[in-house]
Amino acid sequence: MKIGVLGTGTVGQTIATKLVEVGHEVTLGSRTANNEKAVAWAKATGKGAAAGTFEQVGASSDIVFNCTLGSGALEALHMAKESNLAGKIVIDVSNPLDGSKGMPPSLFVSNTDSLGEQIQRAFPKAKVVKTLNTMWCGLMVNPRMLPEPHVNFLAGNDAAAKTTVKGLLKSFGWRDEELFDLGDITSARGMESWLPLWLRIFGATKNGAFNLKLVSAKPA
Amino acid sequence: MKIGVLGTGTVGQTIATKLVEVGHEVTLGSRTANNEKAVAWAKATGKGAAAGTFEQVGASSDIVFNCTLGSGALEALHMAKESNLAGKIVIDVSNPLDGSKGMPPSLFVSNTDSLGEQIQRAFPKAKVVKTLNTMWCGLMVNPRMLPEPHVNFLAGNDAAAKTTVKGLLKSFGWRDEELFDLGDITSARGMESWLPLWLRIFGATKNGAFNLKLVSAKPA
Repeated sequence: MKIGVLGTGTVGQTIATKLVEVGHEVTLGSRTANNEKAVAWAKATGKGAAAGTFEQVGASSDIVFNCTLGSGALEALHMAKESNLAGKIVIDVSNPLDGSKGMPPSLFVSNTDSLGEQIQRAFPKAKVVKTLNTMWCGLMVNPRMLPEPHVNFLAGNDAAAKTTVKGLLKSFGWRDEELFDLGDITSARGMESWLPLWLRIFGATKNGAFNLKLVSAKPA
Repeated sequence: MKIGVLGTGTVGQTIATKLVEVGHEVTLGSRTANNEKAVAWAKATGKGAAAGTFEQVGASSDIVFNCTLGSGALEALHMAKESNLAGKIVIDVSNPLDGSKGMPPSLFVSNTDSLGEQIQRAFPKAKVVKTLNTMWCGLMVNPRMLPEPHVNFLAGNDAAAKTTVKGLLKSFGWRDEELFDLGDITSARGMESWLPLWLRIFGATKNGAFNLKLVSAKPA
């Protein structure tokens, strides 16, 4: 597939590289056509990798990953153009982190709303699926790095889109039983609400290579 | 020890019963001296169990568990009296859940503050330790119900108080390595922030008998 990745930071590059590895044509998108990081990534990655503007990514991709900072997500998606995104799957990996009120960061949208919902409302014809935002990017694309099964949540309004996203995630190494569909896009509130606890755990351990596993009582 | 439990709901009764089982003298506190649920609990539980007002609990207990609804926590603690709580450990198990804006509940304090911090600010001479709020009450007092190790967080400003609380938790069946001290009371923000995700998981599975386990990469 032709897949676009918005955002040239560590998360965007990590996901873009994995997508190339598993056989997709990937464009890493940024504000400008000649973003140094995107161009360097495309050159280093080689076949299947290209750099482009957010608008070019929106126009040319079948699926778009949003890997921007949360604070830049809506603007980047608007630059990708609503008409380009209509009918397409937008996989939102971003978190609404706000470092302006001290560390660890707080959330600039939370509790009764979420960034995933804001994106879905701003792009009502896109099929927004929130996933992968609950962990360090190294784990997103290499879940088998952990010695036990762990969980990756999904939230979104379109069941078929979630099925497609699950397929992509399985190509990253995720197992079916690790993919937990929480329901519609309002569940992004829960997924983004994990970040304040994640940040506290990270602050205490200084190790981001962890994730959560759900342990349940065996049925009686 | 003489331990008071504020709140006669399921959480309060569950914790109070466990405290009696492990050998403490427990008073289950409510607004009034003759609260039916508290009196019935004391009668059914027998030796070591008593019912009393919030104020009686505050005056007579060495340690106080706050197991009220989050919305009633500050009022109950004020009724237990600030002068009574000065110097004592207050174990806050409550969550700031707000069902008034639809289901699942949202939080009435979150993100840049927490109920744990509100309690500590309102009772500056008490030693507030937030713990156990991240799970169903059945697991709080019977952690071995789950087939794998899982995690219970603590947050609080007083290191000695957290050590005492860990001792109590171990008497409930918690293992040392399951007790995760996140740091000072501001970490209550992270612990309370778990609830929106907990509620979504519960909504999807209809099973509250679960908890989270942290899975980390083995050091290289």
